[in-house]
Amino acid sequence: MILNLTKPTLLVDQNKCKKNIVRIARKCKKHGLQFRPHFKTHQSRIIGEWFRDEGIRCITVSSVSMAEYFAGSDWKDITIAFPTNIAEIEKINELAGKIELNLLVESEATTAFLTKNLTSHINIFIKIDTGAHRTGLAPDNYDEIDRIISLTLQSPNLISFKGFLTHAGHTYKAKSSDEIQDKHNKSVSLMLDLKNKYSKPDFPVILSVGDTPTSTLCNNFEGIDEIRPGNFIFYDLMQKQLGVCSETDIAIALACPVVVKHQQRNEVIIYGGAVHFSKEFIEIKNRKVYGKLVKLTQNGWTQMDEDIYVTGLSQEHGIISAPKAFIEAFRVGDFLGILPVHSCLTANLASGFRIL
Amino acid sequence: MILNLTKPTLLVDQNKCKKNIVRIARKCKKHGLQFRPHFKTHQSRIIGEWFRDEGIRCITVSSVSMAEYFAGSDWKDITIAFPTNIAEIEKINELAGKIELNLLVESEATTAFLTKNLTSHINIFIKIDTGAHRTGLAPDNYDEIDRIISLTLQSPNLISFKGFLTHAGHTYKAKSSDEIQDKHNKSVSLMLDLKNKYSKPDFPVILSVGDTPTSTLCNNFEGIDEIRPGNFIFYDLMQKQLGVCSETDIAIALACPVVVKHQQRNEVIIYGGAVHFSKEFIEIKNRKVYGKLVKLTQNGWTQMDEDIYVTGLSQEHGIISAPKAFIEAFRVGDFLGILPVHSCLTANLASGFRIL
Repeated sequence: MILNLTKPTLLVDQNKCKKNIVRIARKCKKHGLQFRPHFKTHQSRIIGEWFRDEGIRCITVSSVSMAEYFAGSDWKDITIAFPTNIAEIEKINELAGKIELNLLVESEATTAFLTKNLTSHINIFIKIDTGAHRTGLAPDNYDEIDRIISLTLQSPNLISFKGFLTHAGHTYKAKSSDEIQDKHNKSVSLMLDLKNKYSKPDFPVILSVGDTPTSTLCNNFEGIDEIRPGNFIFYDLMQKQLGVCSETDIAIALACPVVVKHQQRNEVIIYGGAVHFSKEFIEIKNRKVYGKLVKLTQNGWTQMDEDIYVTGLSQEHGIISAPKAFIEAFRVGDFLGILPVHSCLTANLASGFRIL
Repeated sequence: MILNLTKPTLLVDQNKCKKNIVRIARKCKKHGLQFRPHFKTHQSRIIGEWFRDEGIRCITVSSVSMAEYFAGSDWKDITIAFPTNIAEIEKINELAGKIELNLLVESEATTAFLTKNLTSHINIFIKIDTGAHRTGLAPDNYDEIDRIISLTLQSPNLISFKGFLTHAGHTYKAKSSDEIQDKHNKSVSLMLDLKNKYSKPDFPVILSVGDTPTSTLCNNFEGIDEIRPGNFIFYDLMQKQLGVCSETDIAIALACPVVVKHQQRNEVIIYGGAVHFSKEFIEIKNRKVYGKLVKLTQNGWTQMDEDIYVTGLSQEHGIISAPKAFIEAFRVGDFLGILPVHSCLTANLASGFRIL
């Protein structure tokens, strides 16, 4: 049996990950950008070290818990790129006492709460909605921006305004890489307007952007100071479908044992379900796709000649529809490699992984 | 703050769970059925004890790992209701040496592998496909059934044929409770044919059925020996939509803090996303729904007057669309209770829970 596997196991191709890191790190150097990678995708101290090896010292996470986890392995400058959860003020204060902590706010109310309840200094970014319409202030909501900045100026020992931050999540709905470029350019332009309005020689304003699609594909970073992509470390089928990566860039695969062959209906059932992949899907030719097969080798995996997909998922089962010859070639107990649709959710579900 | 919560927390209403257990336990007594609940839904030793208190001694799980976990807290008769993963033969042998272990097979190949590699005795059920078309032999595939049974007869010290097992998972696609009844009746009838064909006075054949929809709604268990529902311990919005439970039967809710209010577009953003709920959704009025709001109280939760839903999910964010007055009433930092769409996946994602 390849790799001595016994049950669904997340395989991480170290070389691919490192290549993916270096690609973005170089781009940052070229454009004079601070690279502040988002660690929510891998959530791993081991993989974190691969970034440290590239000189990265500043990171992004999506929760206070994740910030605590990485602060525990010597990451000293962390942005929690999620609207500040004031219910966790005690943990926020603990963290703020230990590291350079950057939080997101988008209301006077949350900022006021922080100025009243902080015991150590933090930086804040104001979250701006440049089109994703999930969180963030409208880029022209100057009244609220002014009120937030004004509150920070009243408590300079506790809270410093660092700049504006956005996540152009609407790029995930783009139908082409041109559309991604277009959305990115509009987003950058809106952010730049804010920088021009608020930045003064004695009051520097930082702009932080950067999802994986724009960080990978785009080259217009005029006025931008840092980018925070996360998914790029692994990429996945969703990014491939968006035209952001190629299949060979995808750096994780779930190895799953075949448990049943249904010769008559050309299906294979694997041990590998929603508790391993999540239920995220993409549509290919009007069919829901939950993963794509690769061929496992002694050292990792290679592309298959044919496109074979996971077409159904329940809690622990995955259903693979495949040509007759393929079904015949595999035996119960063999392991199949599956590229995930959404690597962040797949990695989050893994209790561990095998680094190749 | 209600219950002193700081971040997304799964609340378990103990009384509702126990009521849900008792309801099915009574039904089993009435129909002379062995109640072998599926523990994949809660995956909790503590909740397992609530079943033990009702006299339950035999359980179902969906993986070898889960069987190991429950064997570790003194469950001695466990069915792994998932096609046998022969790659885990070592762990299977360990378990078989300690407990009464029941496995599922649906091929001569897997059965032959077991007879060659087992070191302790197990029982097997032959999995039958009565319409779900996920796993299982066709009910009239007598040739393969005969071959499997014949193999077991050659190794009576290692492997005993116990009977036929099915999971009528196609009831989840039913549009009405009548359709569920109909699918159940057909499934039971197919199973009964097999029992009649194979059962002899000196060769008893057990029939095991039972997903949550049919176990809750149906009363025709003629010839059936045991049922294995799992989801009923918690129920969820999917079961409610199927007409299987009422909203007040749902025994878990995820308490999530409000992190942003978007007054202008009548939305609230909660800390509570795909890593808490999974991305399972139902459709209500052509809209994707990922959860439904309830009102948190000091002791649990109560139904709200209005139907308010989680309408969007990303990794950590949930988006709630709600009437203006509702948005105005809530403050950032308040906790909202959310009934999940699929309790099995939501509970699987929880690192722990708060029992009320």
